[in-house]
Amino acid sequence: MELLRINLEQYELPKFWYNITADLPNKLAPALDIHGNPASLDDMAKIFPHTILEQEVATARYVEIPEEVRRIYAQWRPIPLCRAHRLEEILETPAKIYYKYEGMSAAGSHKPNSAIPQAYYNKLAGVKRLTTETGAGQWGASISYAGQMFGLPVRVYMVRVSYDQKVFRRSTMTAWGSEVIASPSELTKAGRDALAADKNCRGSLGLAISEAVEDAINDPNTCYTLGSVMNHVCMHQTVMGLECKKQLAKIDEYPDIVIGACGGGSSFSGIAFPFLGDKLYDEPKAKNLRCIAVEPTSCPSLTKGVFTYDFGDASGYTPLMKMYTLGHDFMPPGIHAGGLRYHGCSPIIAQLYNDKMIEAVAVPQLATFDAGVQFARAEGIIPAPESCHAIRVAIDEALKCKQSGEAKTILFCLTGHGHFDMLSYERYFSGELENYDYPQEAVQKSLEHLPKIEK
Amino acid sequence: MELLRINLEQYELPKFWYNITADLPNKLAPALDIHGNPASLDDMAKIFPHTILEQEVATARYVEIPEEVRRIYAQWRPIPLCRAHRLEEILETPAKIYYKYEGMSAAGSHKPNSAIPQAYYNKLAGVKRLTTETGAGQWGASISYAGQMFGLPVRVYMVRVSYDQKVFRRSTMTAWGSEVIASPSELTKAGRDALAADKNCRGSLGLAISEAVEDAINDPNTCYTLGSVMNHVCMHQTVMGLECKKQLAKIDEYPDIVIGACGGGSSFSGIAFPFLGDKLYDEPKAKNLRCIAVEPTSCPSLTKGVFTYDFGDASGYTPLMKMYTLGHDFMPPGIHAGGLRYHGCSPIIAQLYNDKMIEAVAVPQLATFDAGVQFARAEGIIPAPESCHAIRVAIDEALKCKQSGEAKTILFCLTGHGHFDMLSYERYFSGELENYDYPQEAVQKSLEHLPKIEK
Repeated sequence: MELLRINLEQYELPKFWYNITADLPNKLAPALDIHGNPASLDDMAKIFPHTILEQEVATARYVEIPEEVRRIYAQWRPIPLCRAHRLEEILETPAKIYYKYEGMSAAGSHKPNSAIPQAYYNKLAGVKRLTTETGAGQWGASISYAGQMFGLPVRVYMVRVSYDQKVFRRSTMTAWGSEVIASPSELTKAGRDALAADKNCRGSLGLAISEAVEDAINDPNTCYTLGSVMNHVCMHQTVMGLECKKQLAKIDEYPDIVIGACGGGSSFSGIAFPFLGDKLYDEPKAKNLRCIAVEPTSCPSLTKGVFTYDFGDASGYTPLMKMYTLGHDFMPPGIHAGGLRYHGCSPIIAQLYNDKMIEAVAVPQLATFDAGVQFARAEGIIPAPESCHAIRVAIDEALKCKQSGEAKTILFCLTGHGHFDMLSYERYFSGELENYDYPQEAVQKSLEHLPKIEK
Repeated sequence: MELLRINLEQYELPKFWYNITADLPNKLAPALDIHGNPASLDDMAKIFPHTILEQEVATARYVEIPEEVRRIYAQWRPIPLCRAHRLEEILETPAKIYYKYEGMSAAGSHKPNSAIPQAYYNKLAGVKRLTTETGAGQWGASISYAGQMFGLPVRVYMVRVSYDQKVFRRSTMTAWGSEVIASPSELTKAGRDALAADKNCRGSLGLAISEAVEDAINDPNTCYTLGSVMNHVCMHQTVMGLECKKQLAKIDEYPDIVIGACGGGSSFSGIAFPFLGDKLYDEPKAKNLRCIAVEPTSCPSLTKGVFTYDFGDASGYTPLMKMYTLGHDFMPPGIHAGGLRYHGCSPIIAQLYNDKMIEAVAVPQLATFDAGVQFARAEGIIPAPESCHAIRVAIDEALKCKQSGEAKTILFCLTGHGHFDMLSYERYFSGELENYDYPQEAVQKSLEHLPKIEK
């Protein structure tokens, strides 16, 4: 039998995360306040513990993964690297397609890779309680699991419309002991104001962030957590790519192409950065490596956005970060890959893209579901809608190899299973799912609201 | 770090299933027709191909797993054996608790272990199409996945009430290319009769079986598939226990107690039989081995049923099988572990229980969810309601060890994740979930309807 799975033993679980900021050809532009001054760490310290902030500004190439974190990682990691042999046969491609399936975590996605260390570092700093916001529920579920592992109570502000509709996700958070609050709530000023203006307010991600941040600011024992975009999140996720490197090395393979879906950028960073690091370090084997970030046509921050300073959140609470953005108040169409509906991206990814170290491609919704179903019928696993974006491009690249006759090695990140997303598949099969064009006018409008730095 | 996961490499995937019928101290009573004659294989051959029937009556101790099946198994197998170290700490038990987590399959449960070979053997026999019935959807999803892997179209008759309510499960079957029909349907006489009697008929599992069987009988190119009870299904599932044996041997461990939930008996057979085989073979290490089948208080076929001949299905289509039964027309209360709502059990399990080679215990619904939540908060994974039954008894046995100070080795089968069952957890957390007593009167009534063998 051909080799379909490459394992790692528990002792081969990576002991260090890879911090790509140490190897960037051009350093990251600093976060700024609205006056154009470097954002103060004191402001950040109101919502993050010093242990997390130290990771956010770390300069070492490798940062040790604490033993306590590795003990929880070992509940589901290392994850086998799988070869999509049946898919290759069906596509009649000479390409070799490998994937890392992160749906094996308890939360069913890659998000616990950062949730676990975030809970650990908060605990280490003496924090007593965590807050976060959640839309579709992926991050809320993961930080609930992580909080439970370190005995930290978690309060999740869940957008009211999701709270009512996505009962399954809400129940996973409750199962891990979290308090799930429909946002807007009476617990914060932001919530009360919204309810005073409209007592039937259905909420928004921006508003839920406001509530979670306000809650953390008002209680000195409480900190806020975020599941993407920030440097430390991207670094934690590199455990995925570092495992892949060890696994491919075992069979003397190295990828020609690494592919990840890209919203805020946590999964793309995690799978791609450890390989990209080889390229930045001028390792010969990585000379021709291509790393492709895949985004939705309807929310194409890298391929259509502007490289400039903008807020990280819709409401303007965060410092200004230099990134590719569609404007912080851009509201993307309601595609089913909720995790990719973000107006900007990680500043690290933005810098790398601007420096032409990585590529980006935007794909329409229906084509991603086509790819997801083709994958499910070849390899079994039904992928999350976000993962379908990476699969789409993996298949497209494999088909190019079929044309050219090249036996390239393709690696992609399968971020999670689609078992919570079957309603999206149902709509796809019933023909109700639509493609959305690039919403040019809405983007132009929101780009007019980019923050004006005062100095 | 203590060892939390024991891997197997792909080449260590078992090459043979274990057929416990070769080692039974008392042979199985033959299946009979209503006249008391041995059931004719010709009748069975109307719905099963000869390749499956050969497995059903196999006498060899070990039956080779075809390479084609192992290639699909390798999409998710071998599955690591995990140690529930955090759970042990929380319970403060000296016991060592190991579990096999079958939620890693594409279908999220252990059912593909038999669905894959069943699809393969049907294909081998030249069958062109498969039918089956499904209630909650676990088996329907697994045979859909399996049919897709071998290019066999599958028609699933899904009980109307589940078809309407369990849209998520239905969509997984569609994703794998199956035709899902709400039962009763216009496609069969059984369905048409039911609709003629009541055009709003919501269906039942018995009726869906009737439709699937009728469909298979009427089309010479179509065969029927079943996900539990039968000998060949129990044999296919032994791949789980055989992996566990190899994994425990690597760390020089052997279980004192093996635990599995038991409805029809497929998962219990799969985890327990390979170890029980050692005991039947008088291997010294297995001398004190205990295998415990766990059933719901509300559907306690082993602990409260009668060891006698009964139909395998509610409608009386199957041959008579000797088993522990609550009566084939017993309708268990609506517990959330739908996979355990079966009036009988595998004849092999029945024989072993009658011969006191295995134990059985019945547990109430709320206690199983208590255990499932305790497990989720310790080990991360949110278990399926069926799996919670095994967890309940694993925890109870670990707590007995705490009392006695014994460091026993406990192994249980975690049959699947609960991501499709979060509504059940939601009801548990909201206090809506109830315990059901043993429905003594209903059982007495249905036992009056046991088939009378005419000779």
